Amino acid sequence: MAEMSFREIEGGLLVADGFVASTAAAGIKPEGLDMLLLHSRRPACAAATITTNAFRAAPTYVTENHVANGHARTIVANSGNANAATGERGMTNARRMAELVALEAQVPVDEVLVCSTGRIGIQLPMERIEAAIPELCRGLSRDCAPEAARAIMTTDTVPKECAVEFEAGGKRARIGAIAKGAGMICPNMATMLCFIATDVAITPELLQQALRGAVGRSFNCISVDGDMSTNDTVIVLANGEAGNELIDDEQMRGFAVFCEALHFVTQELAKQIARDGEGASKFIEVRVSGARSWDEAHTVGRAVTRYNLVRSCIWGEDFNWGRIAGAIGASDAEVDPATVSIAIGGIRAFAGGEPVEYDQDEADGVMAGDGILIEIDLGAGDAEAVCWSCDLTPEYVELNAK
Amino acid sequence: MAEMSFREIEGGLLVADGFVASTAAAGIKPEGLDMLLLHSRRPACAAATITTNAFRAAPTYVTENHVANGHARTIVANSGNANAATGERGMTNARRMAELVALEAQVPVDEVLVCSTGRIGIQLPMERIEAAIPELCRGLSRDCAPEAARAIMTTDTVPKECAVEFEAGGKRARIGAIAKGAGMICPNMATMLCFIATDVAITPELLQQALRGAVGRSFNCISVDGDMSTNDTVIVLANGEAGNELIDDEQMRGFAVFCEALHFVTQELAKQIARDGEGASKFIEVRVSGARSWDEAHTVGRAVTRYNLVRSCIWGEDFNWGRIAGAIGASDAEVDPATVSIAIGGIRAFAGGEPVEYDQDEADGVMAGDGILIEIDLGAGDAEAVCWSCDLTPEYVELNAK
Repeated sequence: MAEMSFREIEGGLLVADGFVASTAAAGIKPEGLDMLLLHSRRPACAAATITTNAFRAAPTYVTENHVANGHARTIVANSGNANAATGERGMTNARRMAELVALEAQVPVDEVLVCSTGRIGIQLPMERIEAAIPELCRGLSRDCAPEAARAIMTTDTVPKECAVEFEAGGKRARIGAIAKGAGMICPNMATMLCFIATDVAITPELLQQALRGAVGRSFNCISVDGDMSTNDTVIVLANGEAGNELIDDEQMRGFAVFCEALHFVTQELAKQIARDGEGASKFIEVRVSGARSWDEAHTVGRAVTRYNLVRSCIWGEDFNWGRIAGAIGASDAEVDPATVSIAIGGIRAFAGGEPVEYDQDEADGVMAGDGILIEIDLGAGDAEAVCWSCDLTPEYVELNAK
Repeated sequence: MAEMSFREIEGGLLVADGFVASTAAAGIKPEGLDMLLLHSRRPACAAATITTNAFRAAPTYVTENHVANGHARTIVANSGNANAATGERGMTNARRMAELVALEAQVPVDEVLVCSTGRIGIQLPMERIEAAIPELCRGLSRDCAPEAARAIMTTDTVPKECAVEFEAGGKRARIGAIAKGAGMICPNMATMLCFIATDVAITPELLQQALRGAVGRSFNCISVDGDMSTNDTVIVLANGEAGNELIDDEQMRGFAVFCEALHFVTQELAKQIARDGEGASKFIEVRVSGARSWDEAHTVGRAVTRYNLVRSCIWGEDFNWGRIAGAIGASDAEVDPATVSIAIGGIRAFAGGEPVEYDQDEADGVMAGDGILIEIDLGAGDAEAVCWSCDLTPEYVELNAK
């Protein structure tokens, strides 16, 4: 394996040395796994990015507080209840989850991070959670990665996981990760959860820097419904088991490799989330080029992936490029239509301020596909960004009626 | 009739003296009326607000240009084709529509305003439009107000009209108006068209000021899908036939009455548009109070009316106030959950940072209604704003698949 590279491997969340996990069906959801414990057998450093929603959930405050010193080794998570908009009792319950895990797993309470996802505004069923935690702590193992990915699902239809290995300072290191998405997906962070476990040795500061960079160009580039959630959290734990020379300088080659590998993992998971958006039937990739800055390209990409009228005509397999123009024009970016070009599935529909003739049969063929590529060249600069989404379907509305 | 007041009357677009209109089925749409001419028999002053979409349609440039001097007496509009993203040919066609009307109606070309609404990115069928314009100019009458409201409809299911009369300087004056909405509704201006004809005598400057105020608190407070259109245009023509002393000072009592009456007309039409949003089954009113400014209240109201998850659970008749909290928190306003209260249909669900117990049967009863009132008190100030929307339904997606 060459330096500056990584490769995708099988194994999901637990490929990195020193990590164990367990799951439980605590009865928070009507059926199925609804709790997860992820634990590093040795001290680890930690970084997190958390939703900016003003109504963010109680556990996000606990996690933010406990991760602030850069160290944590255990994550406890539940699905089926968001513990958001639950007031003081919700805060007490989130802290209680951390305390119970700390007690049972024999770690300091400030090394336990807490995540919840599910319905907003309902108190957690604490008796069930309290009964499940000792069982979770006793059941920690290295062979439950598939169950871990399932335990955090809500309306997801498939589990989401990704793992890579890479070389850092001559040592082999790994990153394993899981995520959940489906609805309320417009991270900034926008409910998605993502847990990443790596055995690389790195300082908390550089871990946070790497995570911020990776999240900005992965999870913050997807939109299912444009709705930012109260609970979105991405956490990475790094326990140093790989034995590489500590990455403590951003000029070290190992840092570049780690960043590249982490970016790949988060981007793969982000795309899995977009592909499995609530009710989705088609995956949408929007590539924006020719922008004056990445921010400008991202603004346009986000506007297109959030536009209900673009997403519903993709469900309808209508080559309606005009709605893409409408979405670009409605974005906050300063756009000059005279320099913009728009293509769907490689078929150019608009260029140099003018509509371009295209073959309708060819266009119909493109729209019949499962993946729709929208390419937008703003003609104003050299920067580019890619955003992902899915189509808007009647099933989305039906799923979210409850 | 007391000064400082107005009353709603029957009659729609043509209640004001001196205005005539005509409609045609030119064949731009597969069937039905698709062209409208509105004309003042004497010179009139004019004001307009136009979409800020960067891909705005060719006719919006013609209208902006012609209305700039504050005078115009004729509007020609078509439905079925937006003439947006149509390049140079689209500009030529929009100008040609104005020129033909000017020739036939014998008015200066810069007194003709042009509006189009419909699909984006297709060239106008100019032969059909050119054939229809002489007929439109010959057919002008005072008795086609109902047809006028129908001629600008696209996916609207019902025509939208409103008329009032009021007293200005001892004279009776009137305002008649029509609008179309349905999809791509998130005016800023966001496709909606609205044409307003009044016989009040007022200067162009004060007409523009009155219109800007009215639009800001009416059309800019509605959202159907959060998607700003390329064509939104609101135009008011004022021909002075009422014979009142010219309103040329904003301190004049007549100005206040006119503003109040105009605000009523635009707000009624805005609510009609929200109620008839594409696929809508329920009307949503969001009242935000306790804000530090109208802008802050409006920001929160817009965020809630745009949140797909709120709109789809209203379709599902689910008393899911937690999603309203999520939407408030995701808005750009600085909100402290500890001071916020949320009620749906008068049932308080969240207050002082805590969820409030409510009766589930009562909540189910509220959600079963056709109109859903959401009240949000931010607890931070004295300002308030009201926004309107409709539920998100599977029918919306199906309508917009093509």
